[in-house]
Amino acid sequence: MTTTRIGSLSVDEKRDLLADLIRKKMQRWPNGETPSGSTAILTQALLDDHRRLFPALDGKSYFNYGAHGTLPRPAIDAVLDSWEYMQKWGPFSTQINDWIQQEVSKTIACLATQLDATPQTIALTENVTTACNIVLWGLEWEQGDHLLISDCENPGIVAAIHEVARRFHLHVSTFRAGTSEAATIEGIARGLRSNTRLVVMSHVPWNTGQVLPLTKIAELCRSNRINRGRTLLLVDGAQSVGVLPLNLANSGADFYAFTSHKWLCGPEGIGGLFLASESLEFVQPAFVGWRSVNIDEADGSFTWQPGARRFHISTSAYPLCAGLRRAIGIHEDFAAIEKRYAQILELSRYVWERLQQSATVECLQDSPPETGLVFLRSKSNPHKVVRYLETENCYTRSMYEPECIRLSIHYFTTRHELDRLVELLQNYEQHGPAKILEDMRNGNSYAYQANA
Amino acid sequence: MTTTRIGSLSVDEKRDLLADLIRKKMQRWPNGETPSGSTAILTQALLDDHRRLFPALDGKSYFNYGAHGTLPRPAIDAVLDSWEYMQKWGPFSTQINDWIQQEVSKTIACLATQLDATPQTIALTENVTTACNIVLWGLEWEQGDHLLISDCENPGIVAAIHEVARRFHLHVSTFRAGTSEAATIEGIARGLRSNTRLVVMSHVPWNTGQVLPLTKIAELCRSNRINRGRTLLLVDGAQSVGVLPLNLANSGADFYAFTSHKWLCGPEGIGGLFLASESLEFVQPAFVGWRSVNIDEADGSFTWQPGARRFHISTSAYPLCAGLRRAIGIHEDFAAIEKRYAQILELSRYVWERLQQSATVECLQDSPPETGLVFLRSKSNPHKVVRYLETENCYTRSMYEPECIRLSIHYFTTRHELDRLVELLQNYEQHGPAKILEDMRNGNSYAYQANA
Repeated sequence: MTTTRIGSLSVDEKRDLLADLIRKKMQRWPNGETPSGSTAILTQALLDDHRRLFPALDGKSYFNYGAHGTLPRPAIDAVLDSWEYMQKWGPFSTQINDWIQQEVSKTIACLATQLDATPQTIALTENVTTACNIVLWGLEWEQGDHLLISDCENPGIVAAIHEVARRFHLHVSTFRAGTSEAATIEGIARGLRSNTRLVVMSHVPWNTGQVLPLTKIAELCRSNRINRGRTLLLVDGAQSVGVLPLNLANSGADFYAFTSHKWLCGPEGIGGLFLASESLEFVQPAFVGWRSVNIDEADGSFTWQPGARRFHISTSAYPLCAGLRRAIGIHEDFAAIEKRYAQILELSRYVWERLQQSATVECLQDSPPETGLVFLRSKSNPHKVVRYLETENCYTRSMYEPECIRLSIHYFTTRHELDRLVELLQNYEQHGPAKILEDMRNGNSYAYQANA
Repeated sequence: MTTTRIGSLSVDEKRDLLADLIRKKMQRWPNGETPSGSTAILTQALLDDHRRLFPALDGKSYFNYGAHGTLPRPAIDAVLDSWEYMQKWGPFSTQINDWIQQEVSKTIACLATQLDATPQTIALTENVTTACNIVLWGLEWEQGDHLLISDCENPGIVAAIHEVARRFHLHVSTFRAGTSEAATIEGIARGLRSNTRLVVMSHVPWNTGQVLPLTKIAELCRSNRINRGRTLLLVDGAQSVGVLPLNLANSGADFYAFTSHKWLCGPEGIGGLFLASESLEFVQPAFVGWRSVNIDEADGSFTWQPGARRFHISTSAYPLCAGLRRAIGIHEDFAAIEKRYAQILELSRYVWERLQQSATVECLQDSPPETGLVFLRSKSNPHKVVRYLETENCYTRSMYEPECIRLSIHYFTTRHELDRLVELLQNYEQHGPAKILEDMRNGNSYAYQANA
């Protein structure tokens, strides 16, 4: 596409300029020092600068990345720029149609780099759940086939699996994602049958925060022969993409689903599905539209789009593509994923260690957390505690199974945020219910009113 | 939810204020006159004011509403406001979770009013094709069931139907959407079998622009008894919603799919599906997620969400909801759908009549068009003509079946735009190829470069 312009700068130039400014800002080290080691990079000034890119962090302690990440301002701007570009040169025109193709390709290429996979193996989807459904409905099931799922899956995915099982007359059983790698592997080995067509698990379960041993589990599945080949592995990456360094092409996973709007902090309404090259043949597109196929205009016949693109359906919110790429670029400009993950672990361990000495708030994890997900319990009802924290501009979420408070800690979370959270929790245990009642009487707590 | 504020005004107040300003602007009649009749409303000044709400119309002649409508600036602003609101009070919090519920409910209510249906019968989807797939995959097919589809369906839908037929071993045949109501009815009557489970048709086919006799076809389907009840009717409303006055609740259609981003001029990435109350039971959710179900936190069991909401899957781009409502509000504030449709017909007839006298450009329709879709043919290759027109900031699209140029005329299209289009077409027939070659040599035509 030729360079076309909005105002005095093209969209691409604007983005490059912005990326460059951010990169420069990131390189401004305090006192003119050169960074050395992983701690130097996280000087407070640099982190403050970085956090200012996220409007949601203004005046808040935010711990809900595992539910919904904070969208950076440049990502919002990139979405807006895309919409304006589409209106300026379309919205339907040969130029915009080409531009959309390029936006989709650029976004897939960007995700492929993030996940260490080839672009041909990645499809864009509306969200992680849709990506899982593509596989669940895309396998050509035979009555009596067996599905083995972990006991830590999100209820939405469990519901999807049960509906597929009902429709195609399948058997479903669960394995225990154990507290150790060996226990998990043993649980799967015991659960696999001679007709286990698919194993479904989260790389990082939303309700334990463990990192399940993906490569070993994949090996186990690949070596389990069934009458139609071997057991396939579908991985829910909702809590791993944007957190763990990943190499999907070599992971052994057949299918890996993920979303933009959690740890990647991109816009909601866009996600993706990785399908290993050798596993593509096992999945037929279920929901199909004009983007799934190449249509022969002469006779109206059609063939699937090459690779994972056959799982694209129809018109999506294309402007979200630029937002997702900008969000990813912001993380990458700050530090490599290995360093970001190391920082998440350091911060999770920090709060975990602090709570080892707490008399009132307990951390459910027995050892330092393996990701940014930390599970807390105090003697009060966690749902009430979460609502109280929200009135103090401190954002966490409660869970039912296990009944607790969940923190999501990102690489740009601060110790100050964690300290404040612990203090609020401890105060609540001492004065909580009284303070809550007072707030409700005074009517100055929106969270209570919103949830009355 | 209590009223919470962004800056000095709440989001709702901002929107109300904007809606009010637009309403007032719309009521500013030239010379202080009160409007009377359907022509008075379309005074040029008023129309110019209205068109200024659409950035895409600036400096263009735009005729692609049937492919992609022009997004109004206030709709873009509403989307942006929503994103900012989510970041300000979330993005994940009890307050934002309640707000999302309300955004979804308000949007469904708004669509229900547009379509004359109850909110319980409408689900939001990513687009019209996904909505059709929900029905196609949601019916519990039996091997050998028959599907009857019109010969004018979009290739994406045809591909979806063929894949469903392959997976569930169904028979598919087509009926001819005839040139007269009687011919169409006769075609369907001939096509219906004793095992026809589903008829699929567009209310307004994308490649003919006719209005198919929905109510009569629905009666025919409802009276066709099969071993498991009766024939059901799925309608693709891509080219009818935002054009025709509709009363879906009384139309007899079982299922009616539509999108935001065509004639409603809302954002892309959001659409919907109407399922008549009495037809809901025939469709099981296929793609399922946490939004499809009510989960019993005590034992993890789940039941479907009430009504059409069970077809919601998981996280969507919620900010698009406000954009769609604003776009709809802008049309409604301008004139009722009956007047808008009358104006579309008047403008379509205008260009159709002009072309009756043209020696070089032919209109494929034998009588004045029944909607805003007008199909043209000149002696030149239509694909080349469309690309040439784009270099002149005149946006149309070409088709393969029939091979022609398609215009989409909206209620705010102007006669000046239509006159200019006809002149460009006629000029092209006289000087076209030479001019195109010259443009290519000079390299000053982005459209050619983009499509080289």
